[in-house]
Amino acid sequence: MTLPSLETTPIPGLVVVRLDRRDDDRGFFKENWQREKMLAIGLPDFGPVQNNVSFNASRGVTRGIHTEPWDKFISLATGRIFGAWVDMREGETFGTTFTLEMDTSVAVFVPRGVGNSYQVLEDGTAYTYLVNEHWRPGIAYPALALEDPSAAIDWPIPLSEAIISEKDQNNPALDPATAIAPKKT
Amino acid sequence: MTLPSLETTPIPGLVVVRLDRRDDDRGFFKENWQREKMLAIGLPDFGPVQNNVSFNASRGVTRGIHTEPWDKFISLATGRIFGAWVDMREGETFGTTFTLEMDTSVAVFVPRGVGNSYQVLEDGTAYTYLVNEHWRPGIAYPALALEDPSAAIDWPIPLSEAIISEKDQNNPALDPATAIAPKKT
Ligand SMILES: Cc1cn([C@H]2C[C@H](O)[C@@H](COP(=O)(O)OP(=O)(O)O[C@H]3OC[C@@H](O)[C@H](O)[C@H]3O)O2)c(=O)[nH]c1=O
Ligand SMILES: Cc1cn([C@H]2C[C@H](O)[C@@H](COP(=O)(O)OP(=O)(O)O[C@H]3OC[C@@H](O)[C@H](O)[C@H]3O)O2)c(=O)[nH]c1=O
Repeated sequence: MTLPSLETTPIPGLVVVRLDRRDDDRGFFKENWQREKMLAIGLPDFGPVQNNVSFNASRGVTRGIHTEPWDKFISLATGRIFGAWVDMREGETFGTTFTLEMDTSVAVFVPRGVGNSYQVLEDGTAYTYLVNEHWRPGIAYPALALEDPSAAIDWPIPLSEAIISEKDQNNPALDPATAIAPKKT
Repeated sequence: MTLPSLETTPIPGLVVVRLDRRDDDRGFFKENWQREKMLAIGLPDFGPVQNNVSFNASRGVTRGIHTEPWDKFISLATGRIFGAWVDMREGETFGTTFTLEMDTSVAVFVPRGVGNSYQVLEDGTAYTYLVNEHWRPGIAYPALALEDPSAAIDWPIPLSEAIISEKDQNNPALDPATAIAPKKT
Protein backbone atom coordinates (compact mmCIF):
# COMPACT_ATOMS: atom_id res chain seq x y z
CA MET A 1 0.00 0.00 0.00
CA THR A 2 1.66 3.25 -1.15
CA LEU A 3 0.89 5.94 1.35
CA PRO A 4 0.76 9.58 0.34
CA SER A 5 3.42 11.64 2.09
CA LEU A 6 2.85 14.55 4.42
CA GLU A 7 4.83 17.77 4.85
CA THR A 8 4.29 20.29 7.62
CA THR A 9 4.36 24.06 7.00
CA PRO A 10 5.02 27.16 9.15
CA ILE A 11 1.25 27.30 9.82
CA PRO A 12 0.34 24.76 12.53
CA GLY A 13 -2.08 22.13 11.23
CA LEU A 14 -1.75 23.25 7.59
CA VAL A 15 -0.18 20.26 5.85
CA VAL A 16 0.79 19.41 2.30
CA VAL A 17 -0.04 15.92 1.03
CA ARG A 18 1.80 14.42 -1.97
CA LEU A 19 -0.58 11.97 -3.64
CA ASP A 20 0.15 8.72 -5.44
CA ARG A 21 -1.08 9.76 -8.91
CA ARG A 22 -1.07 6.91 -11.47
CA ASP A 23 -0.48 8.18 -15.00
CA ASP A 24 -1.27 6.05 -18.05
CA ASP A 25 -2.36 6.28 -21.72
CA ARG A 26 -5.80 7.42 -20.72
CA GLY A 27 -4.76 10.24 -18.38
CA PHE A 28 -4.42 9.57 -14.67
CA PHE A 29 -6.13 8.00 -11.69
CA LYS A 30 -5.68 9.16 -8.12
CA GLU A 31 -7.12 8.50 -4.73
CA ASN A 32 -7.67 12.15 -4.00
CA TRP A 33 -8.71 11.50 -0.42
CA GLN A 34 -8.74 8.12 1.28
CA ARG A 35 -9.76 8.18 4.93
CA GLU A 36 -7.64 5.24 6.12
CA LYS A 37 -4.45 6.36 4.40
CA MET A 38 -4.94 10.00 5.43
CA LEU A 39 -5.29 8.95 9.07
CA ALA A 40 -2.23 6.71 8.73
CA ILE A 41 -0.08 9.67 7.64
CA GLY A 42 -1.42 11.84 10.47
CA LEU A 43 -4.31 13.87 9.09
CA PRO A 44 -7.23 14.39 11.49
CA ASP A 45 -10.40 12.32 11.02
CA PHE A 46 -12.19 15.45 9.87
CA GLY A 47 -15.45 13.90 8.66
CA PRO A 48 -16.30 15.60 5.35
CA VAL A 49 -20.01 16.29 4.70
CA GLN A 50 -19.66 18.37 1.56
CA ASN A 51 -17.61 18.24 -1.66
CA ASN A 52 -17.36 21.48 -3.62
CA VAL A 53 -15.95 22.18 -7.07
CA SER A 54 -14.89 25.61 -8.28
CA PHE A 55 -14.06 25.63 -11.96
CA ASN A 56 -11.91 28.41 -13.39
CA ALA A 57 -12.12 29.17 -17.09
CA SER A 58 -8.97 31.30 -17.26
CA ARG A 59 -5.52 31.79 -15.90
CA GLY A 60 -5.61 34.74 -13.50
CA VAL A 61 -8.83 33.94 -11.64
CA THR A 62 -8.05 34.64 -7.98
CA ARG A 63 -10.35 33.59 -5.10
CA GLY A 64 -9.97 34.45 -1.42
CA ILE A 65 -8.71 35.02 1.15
CA HIS A 66 -11.57 33.13 2.90
CA THR A 67 -11.56 31.97 6.51
CA GLU A 68 -14.65 29.80 6.59
CA PRO A 69 -15.60 28.09 9.87
CA TRP A 70 -14.70 24.56 8.83
CA ASP A 71 -11.70 22.44 7.85
CA LYS A 72 -10.93 21.90 4.16
CA PHE A 73 -9.05 19.29 2.18
CA ILE A 74 -8.26 20.97 -1.13
CA SER A 75 -6.86 19.65 -4.40
CA LEU A 76 -7.16 19.83 -8.19
CA ALA A 77 -8.93 17.59 -10.69
CA THR A 78 -7.05 19.30 -13.52
CA GLY A 79 -4.86 22.39 -14.00
CA ARG A 80 -2.47 24.30 -11.80
CA ILE A 81 -2.74 26.94 -9.09
CA PHE A 82 -0.69 29.07 -6.76
CA GLY A 83 -2.20 28.50 -3.29
CA ALA A 84 -1.78 31.01 -0.48
CA TRP A 85 -2.75 30.67 3.18
CA VAL A 86 -2.73 33.09 6.10
CA ASP A 87 -3.09 32.07 9.73
CA MET A 88 -6.01 34.10 11.10
CA ARG A 89 -6.08 32.43 14.53
CA GLU A 90 -5.18 34.17 17.77
CA GLY A 91 -1.70 33.38 19.00
CA GLU A 92 1.93 33.41 18.07
CA THR A 93 1.48 32.36 14.45
CA PHE A 94 -1.28 34.93 13.68
CA GLY A 95 -0.47 36.45 10.27
CA THR A 96 1.95 33.69 9.21
CA THR A 97 1.67 32.94 5.50
CA PHE A 98 2.44 29.90 3.38
CA THR A 99 2.31 29.59 -0.42
CA LEU A 100 2.65 26.62 -2.74
CA GLU A 101 2.32 25.93 -6.45
CA MET A 102 -0.02 22.96 -6.84
CA ASP A 103 -0.73 20.54 -9.65
CA THR A 104 -3.02 17.50 -9.50
CA SER A 105 -0.49 15.44 -7.50
CA VAL A 106 -0.72 17.66 -4.41
CA ALA A 107 -3.43 18.30 -1.80
CA VAL A 108 -3.50 20.60 1.22
CA PHE A 109 -5.37 20.18 4.49
CA VAL A 110 -6.47 23.63 5.71
CA PRO A 111 -7.60 23.73 9.35
CA ARG A 112 -10.41 26.11 10.30
CA GLY A 113 -9.10 29.54 11.21
CA VAL A 114 -6.60 29.59 8.36
CA GLY A 115 -7.46 31.91 5.45
CA ASN A 116 -7.55 30.09 2.12
CA SER A 117 -6.96 31.50 -1.36
CA TYR A 118 -5.63 30.62 -4.77
CA GLN A 119 -4.65 32.05 -8.11
CA VAL A 120 -5.23 30.04 -11.27
CA LEU A 121 -2.12 29.40 -13.40
CA GLU A 122 -3.76 27.48 -16.27
CA ASP A 123 -6.99 27.98 -18.20
CA GLY A 124 -9.60 25.36 -17.29
CA THR A 125 -8.43 24.56 -13.78
CA ALA A 126 -10.88 22.54 -11.66
CA TYR A 127 -10.44 22.95 -7.89
CA THR A 128 -12.19 20.41 -5.69
CA TYR A 129 -12.44 20.28 -1.92
CA LEU A 130 -14.03 18.51 1.01
CA VAL A 131 -15.36 20.35 4.07
CA ASN A 132 -16.73 19.14 7.40
CA GLU A 133 -19.61 21.57 7.94
CA HIS A 134 -22.49 22.48 5.67
CA TRP A 135 -22.41 25.92 4.07
CA ARG A 136 -25.59 28.00 4.47
CA PRO A 137 -26.70 30.97 2.31
CA GLY A 138 -25.88 34.24 4.06
CA ILE A 139 -23.30 32.68 6.38
CA ALA A 140 -20.74 35.36 7.35
CA TYR A 141 -17.07 34.50 7.69
CA PRO A 142 -13.90 36.58 7.93
CA ALA A 143 -12.09 37.37 4.71
CA LEU A 144 -8.81 39.15 4.08
CA ALA A 145 -7.85 41.46 1.20
CA LEU A 146 -5.79 39.65 -1.46
CA GLU A 147 -3.45 42.64 -1.60
CA ASP A 148 -3.07 42.99 2.17
CA PRO A 149 0.37 44.61 2.66
CA SER A 150 1.23 42.82 5.86
CA ALA A 151 0.39 39.33 4.50
CA ALA A 152 2.23 40.47 1.32
CA ILE A 153 1.43 37.43 -0.81
CA ASP A 154 3.70 37.36 -3.85
CA TRP A 155 1.03 36.56 -6.48
CA PRO A 156 2.55 35.25 -9.73
CA ILE A 157 -0.02 37.24 -11.75
CA PRO A 158 -0.40 40.88 -10.66
CA LEU A 159 -3.76 41.44 -8.97
CA SER A 160 -4.40 44.31 -11.39
CA GLU A 161 -4.62 41.66 -14.16
CA ALA A 162 -6.50 39.08 -12.09
CA ILE A 163 -10.17 38.09 -12.36
CA ILE A 164 -11.66 38.62 -8.89
CA SER A 165 -15.29 38.55 -7.68
CA GLU A 166 -16.81 41.81 -6.54
CA LYS A 167 -17.09 40.40 -3.03
CA ASP A 168 -13.37 39.57 -2.93
CA GLN A 169 -12.47 43.11 -4.04
CA ASN A 170 -13.89 44.47 -0.80
CA ASN A 171 -12.23 42.44 1.92
CA PRO A 172 -10.53 44.16 4.90
CA ALA A 173 -6.86 44.32 5.88
CA LEU A 174 -5.23 42.05 8.47
CA ASP A 175 -6.35 43.07 11.96
CA PRO A 176 -5.34 41.25 15.15
CA ALA A 177 -8.61 42.47 16.75
CA THR A 178 -10.50 40.08 14.45
CA ALA A 179 -8.28 37.05 15.15
CA ILE A 180 -10.19 33.79 15.45
CA ALA A 181 -10.25 31.90 18.73
CA PRO A 182 -8.76 28.44 18.08
CA LYS A 183 -11.22 25.55 18.11
CA LYS A 184 -10.43 21.86 18.28
CA THR A 185 -11.29 19.83 15.18
CA MET B 1 -32.03 26.64 0.07
CA THR B 2 -32.06 25.35 -3.50
CA LEU B 3 -32.15 21.58 -3.44
CA PRO B 4 -30.73 19.53 -6.27
CA SER B 5 -33.40 17.47 -8.00
CA LEU B 6 -33.52 13.71 -8.29
CA GLU B 7 -34.67 11.48 -11.14
CA THR B 8 -35.15 7.74 -10.94
CA THR B 9 -34.06 5.37 -13.73
CA PRO B 10 -35.05 1.85 -14.87
CA ILE B 11 -32.28 0.51 -12.59
CA PRO B 12 -33.52 0.44 -8.97
CA GLY B 13 -31.43 2.69 -6.73
CA LEU B 14 -29.52 4.26 -9.65
CA VAL B 15 -30.55 7.91 -9.53
CA VAL B 16 -29.65 11.04 -11.48
CA VAL B 17 -29.05 14.24 -9.52
CA ARG B 18 -29.31 17.67 -11.19
CA LEU B 19 -27.00 20.01 -9.29
CA ASP B 20 -27.35 23.74 -8.60
CA ARG B 21 -24.29 24.92 -10.55
CA ARG B 22 -23.56 28.66 -10.15
CA ASP B 23 -21.91 30.12 -13.24
CA ASP B 24 -20.11 33.48 -13.15
CA ASP B 25 -17.23 35.43 -14.77
CA ARG B 26 -14.68 33.18 -13.13
CA GLY B 27 -16.16 29.84 -14.18
CA PHE B 28 -18.56 28.04 -11.87
CA PHE B 29 -19.07 26.89 -8.31
CA LYS B 30 -21.06 23.85 -7.29
CA GLU B 31 -21.82 21.86 -4.22
CA ASN B 32 -20.97 18.58 -5.87
CA TRP B 33 -22.13 16.55 -2.91
CA GLN B 34 -23.76 17.93 0.22
CA ARG B 35 -24.83 15.33 2.75
CA GLU B 36 -27.83 17.18 4.18
CA LYS B 37 -29.29 18.16 0.81
CA MET B 38 -28.64 14.72 -0.69
CA LEU B 39 -30.52 13.08 2.20
CA ALA B 40 -33.34 15.62 1.83
CA ILE B 41 -33.89 14.60 -1.81
CA GLY B 42 -33.83 10.90 -0.92
CA LEU B 43 -30.27 9.64 -1.45
CA PRO B 44 -29.03 7.09 1.08
CA ASP B 45 -26.63 8.24 3.83
CA PHE B 46 -23.86 6.27 2.13
CA GLY B 47 -20.87 7.51 4.17
CA PRO B 48 -18.06 8.17 1.70
CA VAL B 49 -14.53 7.27 2.85
CA GLN B 50 -12.69 7.83 -0.41
CA ASN B 51 -12.71 10.43 -3.21
CA ASN B 52 -11.17 9.36 -6.52
CA VAL B 53 -10.36 11.37 -9.63
CA SER B 54 -9.84 9.85 -13.05
CA PHE B 55 -8.57 12.38 -15.56
CA ASN B 56 -8.97 11.72 -19.27
CA ALA B 57 -6.68 13.47 -21.71
CA SER B 58 -8.70 12.70 -24.84
CA ARG B 59 -12.16 12.23 -26.21
CA GLY B 60 -12.70 8.49 -26.71
CA VAL B 61 -11.23 7.19 -23.46
CA THR B 62 -13.66 4.50 -22.30
CA ARG B 63 -13.52 2.93 -18.80
CA GLY B 64 -15.60 0.02 -17.52
CA ILE B 65 -17.84 -1.79 -17.10
CA HIS B 66 -16.84 -2.14 -13.40
CA THR B 67 -19.00 -3.59 -10.67
CA GLU B 68 -17.00 -2.72 -7.59
CA PRO B 69 -18.32 -3.78 -4.16
CA TRP B 70 -19.26 -0.29 -2.96
CA ASP B 71 -21.66 2.53 -3.72
CA LYS B 72 -20.47 5.46 -5.84
CA PHE B 73 -21.53 9.05 -6.27
CA ILE B 74 -20.07 10.12 -9.60
CA SER B 75 -19.78 13.49 -11.32
CA LEU B 76 -17.49 15.72 -13.39
CA ALA B 77 -15.21 18.60 -12.41
CA THR B 78 -14.88 19.56 -16.08
CA GLY B 79 -15.75 18.07 -19.47
CA ARG B 80 -18.47 15.78 -20.75
CA ILE B 81 -19.08 12.02 -20.78
CA PHE B 82 -21.54 9.39 -21.93
CA GLY B 83 -22.26 7.28 -18.85
CA ALA B 84 -23.56 3.71 -19.10
CA TRP B 85 -24.76 1.41 -16.33
CA VAL B 86 -25.80 -2.23 -16.27
CA ASP B 87 -27.65 -3.89 -13.40
CA MET B 88 -25.53 -6.90 -12.39
CA ARG B 89 -27.64 -7.87 -9.37
CA GLU B 90 -29.70 -11.03 -9.16
CA GLY B 91 -33.38 -10.50 -9.81
CA GLU B 92 -35.88 -9.13 -12.29
CA THR B 93 -33.82 -6.16 -13.37
CA PHE B 94 -30.58 -8.14 -13.99
CA GLY B 95 -29.12 -6.89 -17.28
CA THR B 96 -31.14 -3.66 -17.38
CA THR B 97 -29.11 -0.77 -18.83
CA PHE B 98 -29.29 2.98 -18.47
CA THR B 99 -27.24 5.61 -20.33
CA LEU B 100 -26.94 9.37 -19.89
CA GLU B 101 -24.85 12.16 -21.34
CA MET B 102 -23.39 14.11 -18.42
CA ASP B 103 -21.84 17.54 -18.06
CA THR B 104 -20.70 19.19 -14.82
CA SER B 105 -24.27 19.96 -13.73
CA VAL B 106 -25.24 16.30 -13.30
CA ALA B 107 -24.27 13.57 -10.83
CA VAL B 108 -25.30 9.92 -10.58
CA PHE B 109 -25.58 7.71 -7.51
CA VAL B 110 -24.59 4.16 -8.46
CA PRO B 111 -25.54 1.50 -5.90
CA ARG B 112 -23.22 -1.47 -5.41
CA GLY B 113 -24.04 -4.28 -7.78
CA VAL B 114 -24.58 -1.95 -10.72
CA GLY B 115 -21.83 -1.97 -13.36
CA ASN B 116 -20.37 1.48 -14.02
CA SER B 117 -18.72 2.80 -17.18
CA TYR B 118 -18.20 5.93 -19.20
CA GLN B 119 -16.93 7.22 -22.50
CA VAL B 120 -15.23 10.61 -22.66
CA LEU B 121 -16.78 13.11 -25.09
CA GLU B 122 -14.34 16.01 -24.58
CA ASP B 123 -10.56 16.18 -24.27
CA GLY B 124 -9.48 16.97 -20.72
CA THR B 125 -12.47 15.54 -18.86
CA ALA B 126 -12.02 15.14 -15.09
CA TYR B 127 -14.28 12.52 -13.48
CA THR B 128 -14.56 12.61 -9.71
CA TYR B 129 -16.37 10.23 -7.39
CA LEU B 130 -16.99 9.29 -3.79
CA VAL B 131 -17.13 5.69 -2.57
CA ASN B 132 -18.03 4.15 0.79
CA GLU B 133 -15.42 1.40 1.04
CA HIS B 134 -11.66 1.54 0.72
CA TRP B 135 -10.13 0.06 -2.40
CA ARG B 136 -7.26 -2.41 -1.86
CA PRO B 137 -4.58 -3.47 -4.37
CA GLY B 138 -5.49 -6.80 -5.91
CA ILE B 139 -9.16 -6.59 -5.00
CA ALA B 140 -11.18 -8.62 -7.51
CA TYR B 141 -14.55 -7.41 -8.71
CA PRO B 142 -16.82 -8.41 -11.59
CA ALA B 143 -16.45 -6.52 -14.84
CA LEU B 144 -18.41 -6.71 -18.06
CA ALA B 145 -17.17 -6.37 -21.64
CA LEU B 146 -17.85 -2.88 -23.04
CA GLU B 147 -19.04 -4.48 -26.29
CA ASP B 148 -21.29 -7.08 -24.62
CA PRO B 149 -24.00 -7.83 -27.20
CA SER B 150 -26.78 -8.37 -24.72
CA ALA B 151 -26.14 -5.13 -22.79
CA ALA B 152 -25.73 -3.53 -26.27
CA ILE B 153 -24.61 -0.09 -25.10
CA ASP B 154 -24.88 2.39 -27.95
CA TRP B 155 -21.47 4.09 -27.48
CA PRO B 156 -21.29 7.47 -29.26
CA ILE B 157 -17.68 6.74 -30.29
CA PRO B 158 -17.15 3.28 -31.82
CA LEU B 159 -15.16 1.05 -29.47
CA SER B 160 -12.73 0.35 -32.30
CA GLU B 161 -11.67 4.03 -32.05
CA ALA B 162 -11.78 4.20 -28.25
CA ILE B 163 -8.84 4.29 -25.82
CA ILE B 164 -9.33 1.36 -23.44
CA SER B 165 -7.02 -0.15 -20.81
CA GLU B 166 -5.66 -3.60 -21.45
CA LYS B 167 -7.59 -4.89 -18.45
CA ASP B 168 -10.87 -3.54 -19.83
CA GLN B 169 -10.26 -5.22 -23.18
CA ASN B 170 -10.52 -8.61 -21.51
CA ASN B 171 -13.74 -8.51 -19.56
CA PRO B 172 -16.34 -11.31 -19.92
CA ALA B 173 -19.83 -11.27 -21.40
CA LEU B 174 -23.04 -10.89 -19.37
CA ASP B 175 -23.75 -14.12 -17.49
CA PRO B 176 -26.66 -14.63 -15.08
CA ALA B 177 -24.55 -17.23 -13.26
CA THR B 178 -22.30 -14.42 -12.01
CA ALA B 179 -25.14 -12.15 -10.84
CA ILE B 180 -24.44 -10.38 -7.58
CA ALA B 181 -26.52 -11.09 -4.50
CA PRO B 182 -28.17 -7.82 -3.43
CA LYS B 183 -26.79 -6.25 -0.26
CA LYS B 184 -28.34 -3.47 1.81
CA THR B 185 -26.42 -0.13 1.82
C1 LIG C 1 -19.00 28.30 -0.51
C2 LIG C 1 -20.36 28.04 -1.16
C3 LIG C 1 -20.91 28.91 -2.06
N1 LIG C 1 -22.12 28.66 -2.65
C4 LIG C 1 -22.66 29.57 -3.69
C5 LIG C 1 -22.75 31.02 -3.35
C6 LIG C 1 -22.50 31.67 -4.69
O1 LIG C 1 -23.69 31.69 -5.45
C7 LIG C 1 -21.54 30.72 -5.40
C8 LIG C 1 -20.09 31.14 -5.33
O2 LIG C 1 -19.77 31.52 -4.00
P1 LIG C 1 -18.62 32.57 -3.62
O3 LIG C 1 -18.90 33.09 -2.26
O4 LIG C 1 -18.43 33.53 -4.75
O5 LIG C 1 -17.38 31.63 -3.46
P2 LIG C 1 -15.93 31.72 -4.07
O6 LIG C 1 -15.42 33.12 -4.07
O7 LIG C 1 -15.86 30.98 -5.34
O8 LIG C 1 -15.11 30.87 -3.00
C9 LIG C 1 -15.41 29.50 -2.89
O9 LIG C 1 -14.55 28.72 -3.71
C10 LIG C 1 -13.17 28.77 -3.39
C11 LIG C 1 -12.95 28.35 -1.96
O10 LIG C 1 -11.63 28.50 -1.57
C12 LIG C 1 -13.81 29.17 -1.05
O11 LIG C 1 -13.67 28.65 0.24
C13 LIG C 1 -15.25 29.12 -1.44
O12 LIG C 1 -16.01 29.99 -0.66
O13 LIG C 1 -21.75 29.47 -4.80
C14 LIG C 1 -22.82 27.51 -2.34
O14 LIG C 1 -23.92 27.27 -2.88
N2 LIG C 1 -22.29 26.63 -1.45
C15 LIG C 1 -21.10 26.82 -0.85
O15 LIG C 1 -20.67 25.94 -0.08
C1 LIG D 1 -10.00 1.99 -8.27
C2 LIG D 1 -8.61 2.31 -7.76
C3 LIG D 1 -7.48 2.13 -8.53
N1 LIG D 1 -6.23 2.41 -8.06
C4 LIG D 1 -5.04 2.29 -8.93
C5 LIG D 1 -4.83 0.99 -9.62
C6 LIG D 1 -4.19 1.43 -10.92
O1 LIG D 1 -2.80 1.65 -10.73
C7 LIG D 1 -4.80 2.79 -11.22
C8 LIG D 1 -5.94 2.74 -12.22
O2 LIG D 1 -6.81 1.68 -11.88
P1 LIG D 1 -7.71 0.92 -12.97
O3 LIG D 1 -8.11 -0.39 -12.40
O4 LIG D 1 -7.08 0.98 -14.31
O5 LIG D 1 -9.03 1.79 -12.92
P2 LIG D 1 -9.88 2.43 -14.10
O6 LIG D 1 -10.00 1.49 -15.25
O7 LIG D 1 -9.42 3.80 -14.36
O8 LIG D 1 -11.29 2.54 -13.38
C9 LIG D 1 -11.41 3.43 -12.29
O9 LIG D 1 -11.84 4.71 -12.70
C10 LIG D 1 -13.13 4.77 -13.29
C11 LIG D 1 -14.15 4.20 -12.34
O10 LIG D 1 -15.41 4.15 -12.91
C12 LIG D 1 -13.75 2.86 -11.89
O11 LIG D 1 -14.67 2.46 -10.91
C13 LIG D 1 -12.37 2.82 -11.32
O12 LIG D 1 -11.96 1.51 -11.05
O13 LIG D 1 -5.22 3.27 -9.96
C14 LIG D 1 -6.06 2.92 -6.77
O14 LIG D 1 -4.94 3.21 -6.34
N2 LIG D 1 -7.16 3.10 -6.00
C15 LIG D 1 -8.44 2.85 -6.41
O15 LIG D 1 -9.38 3.10 -5.65
